[in-house]
Amino acid sequence: MSVNILFAADQADWPDYEIPLREALTTEGLEFDLRTTFDPQVVDYIVYAPSSDVQDFTPYTRLKAVLNLWAGVEGVAGNQTLNVPLARMVDHGLTQGMVEWVTGHVLRHHLGMDAHIVNPAHEWALGAPPLAEDRPVTILGYGALGTACGEALRTLGFPVTGWSRRPGDTPGINRLHGSDGFTKALETAAILVLLLPLTIDTENLIDADALARLPKGAVIINPGRGGLIDDAALIAALDEGHISHATLDVFRVEPLPADDPYWAHPKVTVTPHIASETRPKTAARTIAQNIRRAEDGLPLNHLVDRDRGY
Amino acid sequence: MSVNILFAADQADWPDYEIPLREALTTEGLEFDLRTTFDPQVVDYIVYAPSSDVQDFTPYTRLKAVLNLWAGVEGVAGNQTLNVPLARMVDHGLTQGMVEWVTGHVLRHHLGMDAHIVNPAHEWALGAPPLAEDRPVTILGYGALGTACGEALRTLGFPVTGWSRRPGDTPGINRLHGSDGFTKALETAAILVLLLPLTIDTENLIDADALARLPKGAVIINPGRGGLIDDAALIAALDEGHISHATLDVFRVEPLPADDPYWAHPKVTVTPHIASETRPKTAARTIAQNIRRAEDGLPLNHLVDRDRGY
Repeated sequence: MSVNILFAADQADWPDYEIPLREALTTEGLEFDLRTTFDPQVVDYIVYAPSSDVQDFTPYTRLKAVLNLWAGVEGVAGNQTLNVPLARMVDHGLTQGMVEWVTGHVLRHHLGMDAHIVNPAHEWALGAPPLAEDRPVTILGYGALGTACGEALRTLGFPVTGWSRRPGDTPGINRLHGSDGFTKALETAAILVLLLPLTIDTENLIDADALARLPKGAVIINPGRGGLIDDAALIAALDEGHISHATLDVFRVEPLPADDPYWAHPKVTVTPHIASETRPKTAARTIAQNIRRAEDGLPLNHLVDRDRGY
Repeated sequence: MSVNILFAADQADWPDYEIPLREALTTEGLEFDLRTTFDPQVVDYIVYAPSSDVQDFTPYTRLKAVLNLWAGVEGVAGNQTLNVPLARMVDHGLTQGMVEWVTGHVLRHHLGMDAHIVNPAHEWALGAPPLAEDRPVTILGYGALGTACGEALRTLGFPVTGWSRRPGDTPGINRLHGSDGFTKALETAAILVLLLPLTIDTENLIDADALARLPKGAVIINPGRGGLIDDAALIAALDEGHISHATLDVFRVEPLPADDPYWAHPKVTVTPHIASETRPKTAARTIAQNIRRAEDGLPLNHLVDRDRGY
């Protein structure tokens, strides 16, 4: 039996999602009709985003489930016209992309790659870098993303410290917490990775005091949130030579304005918020697997508890 | 009881090895006197390299064992004046360093880092790279180093093909062999890593034909041996745009001569033979552990079979 699937997320995303969705649905062995418009009463499933034109689900009388394309469901969980199961997006690709980006940039700084990539004097600089086991990495923020990155770095041999607000215990990882732990986490970090959420407690957490706690020559890698860093303090620490380099993927204003001092700073690498991005291919797989589950009479993965709102 | 240890390897290496050796010997709980000169008849152990001034072991009447600082023992295994156990160097650091270098440069090319590291136009280029699972890597040469690198890349999500002359079977790795396998290994390689030894069969293996088999836009990473590549053919393939980049750590002549075209080529990164290097710290640990074993009456690790010569 064929199912009718309405793509009612942001229409600008349709070109990126159409082929991955068709492929993923086919892989799941589903017969389907996938479109951006349908007569509401024939729709079985809606691929959704809270920004959608569809805000009243009442006409969708045959609807079996709504598959949200975003991790956040705060714009739909409270919708009183929605009376079928709602699933949020959990994208393996987002975590995996973050692990690749963090591991890649940690190795880049560890190996001193930049001096070989840009080497106008053609210098044959002898001497191998130390091994990963002699390059301690601290990850601030040890949730799902921090844990995945920490595990990849530990597997490569780096001594990893993971700091979080609350205590945690992770085999092979030096777990610290609280304000005493924060100081220790900074003092040992040859490379500091920021993976904290932005809250009232974490805004400007990496200020002049925190930067001064880092060992001389430390590198900062920020794929978390722009607001975690006091930008003026970071630029001062780079100019003084206390911090040797900052690789930043997130900023208070994005795209980073043309006149932002980070762009031209010789010790800063800007990447355009690419470390964590929902990938159509892996997100499509999550959605197709959930439609397969619904057709098989199984409960949805990542089902939203409408009362709790997530 | 204290042991007398003579450092009789290349004296130019003494400054790099003295402190790591003292630390490693202390860690093993040994009492020792470590020097570059001794009265031969009081020497218990010799840290050795075949290039050493010591070629006649006859005066070393108290000698218990010789610890070679090199992996290769062909310059000492046949020495008829040596009548005590001889151990070759097996350096964890050499393998580990190779894994870090290969993984780092694979991730660098996978993530397209160079465009962010050198970005004079300050371009905020949107769009994340594909995931590692969509970037097949082929490793030519699947011995100890190839296996270690392949495992690290597989763990990060890359589909890994490992080609070797003889068949092999490795869980999670697409193992190919022989000349049919060679063609397949090239045809699927978005990133090609060369880890073959240099033999009469492998010299110039990466010639114009092999390069043409690679998908358009492929990247070549060579931490193996310079002679594996037909240099003129590689430069032609880079100029034509068929190969997008080559990162080379090894060359037919090292240091790479100032007039070598690789230096100035915009699609070539030269690294100064740093991918695999014996590290004093890890090599010192291997030696100290072996002296500890000898003192405890245990057989040496990595003991050389003098009849077979390795």
